[in-house]
Amino acid sequence: MYTDYDVVIIGSGCAGLAAGIYTGRAGLSTAVMEKESMGGELMSRQLVENYPGFANGIMGPDLASAMLEQASNAGAEVKSGEVVEIKDKSGYKMIKTADETVTCKGIIIAAGSHPRKLQVPGEDEFANKGVFYCATCDGVKCAGKDVAVAGAGDSGLTEALYLERLGCKVTVLELMPQPKASKVLIDRIGANPNIEIKCGVRIESVAGDEWVTGIHLQDPDTGVKDYLTAGGIYVRIGLIPNTQFLQDILTLSPGGQIPVNEHMETAIPGIFAAGDVRLNSPAQMAAAVGDGVTAAMALGRYIASL
Amino acid sequence: MYTDYDVVIIGSGCAGLAAGIYTGRAGLSTAVMEKESMGGELMSRQLVENYPGFANGIMGPDLASAMLEQASNAGAEVKSGEVVEIKDKSGYKMIKTADETVTCKGIIIAAGSHPRKLQVPGEDEFANKGVFYCATCDGVKCAGKDVAVAGAGDSGLTEALYLERLGCKVTVLELMPQPKASKVLIDRIGANPNIEIKCGVRIESVAGDEWVTGIHLQDPDTGVKDYLTAGGIYVRIGLIPNTQFLQDILTLSPGGQIPVNEHMETAIPGIFAAGDVRLNSPAQMAAAVGDGVTAAMALGRYIASL
Repeated sequence: MYTDYDVVIIGSGCAGLAAGIYTGRAGLSTAVMEKESMGGELMSRQLVENYPGFANGIMGPDLASAMLEQASNAGAEVKSGEVVEIKDKSGYKMIKTADETVTCKGIIIAAGSHPRKLQVPGEDEFANKGVFYCATCDGVKCAGKDVAVAGAGDSGLTEALYLERLGCKVTVLELMPQPKASKVLIDRIGANPNIEIKCGVRIESVAGDEWVTGIHLQDPDTGVKDYLTAGGIYVRIGLIPNTQFLQDILTLSPGGQIPVNEHMETAIPGIFAAGDVRLNSPAQMAAAVGDGVTAAMALGRYIASL
Repeated sequence: MYTDYDVVIIGSGCAGLAAGIYTGRAGLSTAVMEKESMGGELMSRQLVENYPGFANGIMGPDLASAMLEQASNAGAEVKSGEVVEIKDKSGYKMIKTADETVTCKGIIIAAGSHPRKLQVPGEDEFANKGVFYCATCDGVKCAGKDVAVAGAGDSGLTEALYLERLGCKVTVLELMPQPKASKVLIDRIGANPNIEIKCGVRIESVAGDEWVTGIHLQDPDTGVKDYLTAGGIYVRIGLIPNTQFLQDILTLSPGGQIPVNEHMETAIPGIFAAGDVRLNSPAQMAAAVGDGVTAAMALGRYIASL
């Protein structure tokens, strides 16, 4: 049956681009749909030190550019569009965006995730006025100030180091009693006099007037209140999978992720998931890339069998 | 309990080095054991076009060097040694090589695979005298000659293109009725007047005197015999997992691969497998790298729980 594309890949992060490199090279006509910036989450990353193949690391946007060019060289078409619905028709799939409807034989969902919010008073009020979710994107707006980072995981600590290089004094705020991050990052922060990690504190609200001026804190055990003067806060407390548009077609996990088998097949034949959107993803770029390749190869076999 | 290392990784191919980058960065003392050339299978690869992150591809040995340096920067120690046995002791593991016995808390088996042989008369007799298993390593020995490549998969066709660039006229011999390779490679070969793909032929024997002079062929359906004059043959008909040393400790698949779950855990707690050695691996570099990262993260959780 004629379809607009053989393959539509939803999301142009590293899982989606890895898949596109493979489906393109396999001679399958491929569209990669991206609702935000081409390259996905990678575009907001600083130095990526743990993607294998770059001895001294590579900047996120540079890695994204390389993968975009590689997918394009392989014949994949990367295009703008937010997918709002997918449908499984008899013998083909249908993908709806705000602007168009396209048909294809198989889909790889590599839609990634978006930042979890604090959900405290002041967060929305001061959004873009001191409350940010990405130091790489918006760090320069607080250069030289005293700032907070919410969350002492790998991404929180990486953001803290980045902000420190912009001349900030940084306090990392963590609800848990210990930071849940790589030892290499914890050690690096420990050796940096301009960064402090405060564990066991709950963020109660964000204060300010025209711009953020501080953070109200509370000890979750004792109830003792505290206040941190800060000219900005960068929130890195987790990611929510971008799977809202799939609720009518796939059964998602309680966390909103897509269950898959080892070939990245979802419950619907011809629909695959790869990267952070799939259940039990290690949430690492290299693993997302591996997922994309695995999904693309399984999709190739699926299309060959049609 | 004191052990020589926290982690021993068996194999320095892309799965093993990806794992080493992660365990090293996690602050786990790590040894990567390699029985042959550091960098594993990558060292025998030509241009790698499908590893995401390199818009125009990267030479296999260059990618291997980058990963080796990155693992070393992360603190992993890459050392020579062929593992002959591993043992699961109470609370630790033991690894034996010809030269030493080392102890550790967790193991990642990333031992890769080796080439499958034709198993026909003349193959062993003319080994290194016209019979080779890697054009990248030994192609120059047949430069300018008429040669054969056995196997029309991705790796066979890649070898054929490489040999053609060395001035060879290449005949690719394939038992199956169709080449089982990426369309991009089949198209590229189709456009190259110096390479021919012959499908539906069985290799009966390799002929020669001091050096290979030709290949005896047979049509598997009709029994009709044929002879191809050739000054060399490069065999690329599949890979056998390097898991012989595991037969006493793990139950392997009929093909010799290691069954794992989605976290790359084997049946023995603290022993993981990654890359081509594990059952149902897509046998692609990017997927092997993803496996290595997944195994390293799961191993980190395992050691933290001890």
